[in-house]
Amino acid sequence: MDLNCDMGESYGRFQVGADAELWPYVTSANLACGFHGGCPLTIQASVDAALAHGVSVGAHPGYPDLMGFGRREMTMSDAEMYTSMVYQISALRGFLAIKGGVLHHVKLHGALYHRASVDRSVARAVVAAIRDVDPTLCVYTLPESVLAEVAQEAQLAVWREGFADRRYAADGRLLPRTHPKALLQTVAEVEEQVRGLMHEGRVIGEDGRPISMVVDTICLHGDGPNAIAFARAAKAVLDAQRR
Amino acid sequence: MDLNCDMGESYGRFQVGADAELWPYVTSANLACGFHGGCPLTIQASVDAALAHGVSVGAHPGYPDLMGFGRREMTMSDAEMYTSMVYQISALRGFLAIKGGVLHHVKLHGALYHRASVDRSVARAVVAAIRDVDPTLCVYTLPESVLAEVAQEAQLAVWREGFADRRYAADGRLLPRTHPKALLQTVAEVEEQVRGLMHEGRVIGEDGRPISMVVDTICLHGDGPNAIAFARAAKAVLDAQRR
Amino acid sequence: MDLNCDMGESYGRFQVGADAELWPYVTSANLACGFHGGCPLTIQASVDAALAHGVSVGAHPGYPDLMGFGRREMTMSDAEMYTSMVYQISALRGFLAIKGGVLHHVKLHGALYHRASVDRSVARAVVAAIRDVDPTLCVYTLPESVLAEVAQEAQLAVWREGFADRRYAADGRLLPRTHPKALLQTVAEVEEQVRGLMHEGRVIGEDGRPISMVVDTICLHGDGPNAIAFARAAKAVLDAQRR
Amino acid sequence: MDLNCDMGESYGRFQVGADAELWPYVTSANLACGFHGGCPLTIQASVDAALAHGVSVGAHPGYPDLMGFGRREMTMSDAEMYTSMVYQISALRGFLAIKGGVLHHVKLHGALYHRASVDRSVARAVVAAIRDVDPTLCVYTLPESVLAEVAQEAQLAVWREGFADRRYAADGRLLPRTHPKALLQTVAEVEEQVRGLMHEGRVIGEDGRPISMVVDTICLHGDGPNAIAFARAAKAVLDAQRR
Repeated sequence: MDLNCDMGESYGRFQVGADAELWPYVTSANLACGFHGGCPLTIQASVDAALAHGVSVGAHPGYPDLMGFGRREMTMSDAEMYTSMVYQISALRGFLAIKGGVLHHVKLHGALYHRASVDRSVARAVVAAIRDVDPTLCVYTLPESVLAEVAQEAQLAVWREGFADRRYAADGRLLPRTHPKALLQTVAEVEEQVRGLMHEGRVIGEDGRPISMVVDTICLHGDGPNAIAFARAAKAVLDAQRR
Repeated sequence: MDLNCDMGESYGRFQVGADAELWPYVTSANLACGFHGGCPLTIQASVDAALAHGVSVGAHPGYPDLMGFGRREMTMSDAEMYTSMVYQISALRGFLAIKGGVLHHVKLHGALYHRASVDRSVARAVVAAIRDVDPTLCVYTLPESVLAEVAQEAQLAVWREGFADRRYAADGRLLPRTHPKALLQTVAEVEEQVRGLMHEGRVIGEDGRPISMVVDTICLHGDGPNAIAFARAAKAVLDAQRR
Repeated sequence: MDLNCDMGESYGRFQVGADAELWPYVTSANLACGFHGGCPLTIQASVDAALAHGVSVGAHPGYPDLMGFGRREMTMSDAEMYTSMVYQISALRGFLAIKGGVLHHVKLHGALYHRASVDRSVARAVVAAIRDVDPTLCVYTLPESVLAEVAQEAQLAVWREGFADRRYAADGRLLPRTHPKALLQTVAEVEEQVRGLMHEGRVIGEDGRPISMVVDTICLHGDGPNAIAFARAAKAVLDAQRR
Repeated sequence: MDLNCDMGESYGRFQVGADAELWPYVTSANLACGFHGGCPLTIQASVDAALAHGVSVGAHPGYPDLMGFGRREMTMSDAEMYTSMVYQISALRGFLAIKGGVLHHVKLHGALYHRASVDRSVARAVVAAIRDVDPTLCVYTLPESVLAEVAQEAQLAVWREGFADRRYAADGRLLPRTHPKALLQTVAEVEEQVRGLMHEGRVIGEDGRPISMVVDTICLHGDGPNAIAFARAAKAVLDAQRR
């Protein structure tokens, strides 16, 4: 089981996330590519750190909206979306190639992550870009999302993603960030959720009942107040499994 | 002899240059990479057009300054410069690779072009980036510039560049753009300058005396009022040579 | 009757619109404020030109999206929208105040123009900003739009806007730009539409039947191939009325 | 004696500085205006906080360089500089006016602060903008700088600025940030420097000898590891003086 985290989102002197402390706990990193965060200096430093920690590198492209950190929905044409993906993924890939690394996956950022999971037109533009840049890239996305479907049709590998610290509604969807119970609060809750995802293919929904949730990778968040404690807990469950 | 032109500098709906009309007259194109101009849509359209016209594609990276169109000097650290080059060149290269094209060269843009021709520290950061991305890339730069020297030390191919429509001072340097006589005015002047560069390895300086000027590529400008007429004239000299 | 035009949308060396030629034909100008277009240099030049031509100045704020020229829908929170409006309008107003000018109106740009005409939440944030900056500003918007309603509730003056060169559907809405007949093609058509708006309070819809359309200002566009000819025609109708 | 601090430099979700904790310790705040930091949301929140704490508000304009946080030198024309200042100061002033506040001063940011203190052409463009926006604004700058001189010639009030936590060279200039001893390290050092600036009109230079340094305002920095402890110390010296 893969533990992924969005990283490399700082921009110049603007810092985001506790990247330095998180590297030991993740097995793959989704690196911002310059549009919602991630300047060239940050990209290079993040690629170097990932390789030093033996962490798989993915591209984490987003909407071209630094002020909104890619969390604001934007309406882009298919051609704008396709070319924005090619641009971002290629830029990141260039840094990796210099160090002899190989890009492993693509995970969309923020509002675009959610849009592509329900909007077939956006999903198609994104998938076309990924496939054209490198058809061996795999796509991280929600299980049973439109993006998963479109990626599979294009013969791309899909890694279904679960969340270590987000609460699921009874229907298997994530509670929206605005929901008061959207985020798990304690290490125990995170441990239980990771254990469920890892061993049993299910999570406990908001109503207390189990929901089937078979995933290939689990997402940690690097920016909450408990980010490091939660990452450590998730990693401990993962390591226990391996022993 | 190569005829190059800066192209693909439009950004979204902001149009720059008469690209559509210029393609038939150039043999290589320096494509903006998104920092001083050149959005993803424009990059893709420019790569497609270059390939359709059999024109060699170069990267044309610049300072991160859209408002100043890369024509304002900026002080960047070596690491900022290196990573900014890797980012821009890699992004462009991604589009080219999808279409089966191969990046041919790098020509710096605007204020950075001039800075790297005299500043060894900047030249070294730029050359390191080019070499790390692809050591077969060649570098377009002024003859006898610091950048030429540093590039040669790094075993990069250097193409010395002359200008079809800029007037040279008696010492062989370009008259600055602010000089009233900086730009040639007539097709006849352009023809004579191109012929001198192509056949005789010299130009006529501002004082009317010949200056030795051995170059490998001649730059056209795509944005003046006579851009097309000058391009046609330069191409005619080139074609006459070939016959 | 007022003839307005979106102007001052150039950004650095990126030119948009035939501003220089249009000033004689308009009675009010909507000046871009830096987010979708309009850099500080352009704002100052446009303010100067407007005052020199005796043209009323309005703010033309848009989404923070230079690459998309403010024509891409973006989801912003009410607070983001309110503060983005205060920022843009205040910046423009500063230039005007230096020259002793007074800001006359606000007209939203591009995708935001359309969004605020149907989205009450966005309209409220925009209106709150306009009223807080200066309650004597008037708002240019579509007749019977949500923005018109919300502005009137806030005691702001509303100028209903018609279009000189856009075709109206049978229901009184503009045909979308993507519609093949969206734009009028000939000077005669523009003259007839302006005459109808000015004298009869009606336009001819796509189906050939008249639609009631009572407006206070008529919008010209500065960027089409016939922009100047259409502007001249509209101005001629206006001048004939005055005689 | 005034205690000032650069604040409101966060941009969207990118946080900079410990603003929330610093408000109680400062008497004036220099608020970023959107070019090197400071988005509209941040500006509004900072204006509100300043007014709530009874803190004087100044504009803190910088180079248009978000990625470099305004710390990279840029060459701008006088007209670009003048209009960039008008734009930024006016935008900030709009927020303040809505809340009934009055802009108190202008302090330049980062590389521009240093450039204007030695470059007469830049200083003139900046001063012209400040005077044109509001001739009652005062200018914070280094004692005996070119900016101080040019501002005084234009009849602007000048507040000479000292630094609580930066070490001075023997010639009275600040040690550059790259110098190992550039920053004071302990609360005791900061207390002594503030006491010297406040009561004796002198600081102790790097060589241990006193240097005359008569100032009107003392700058705290909000982003170092000891920012709050240093601010508390400086405020304590100030409060002791007042008793």
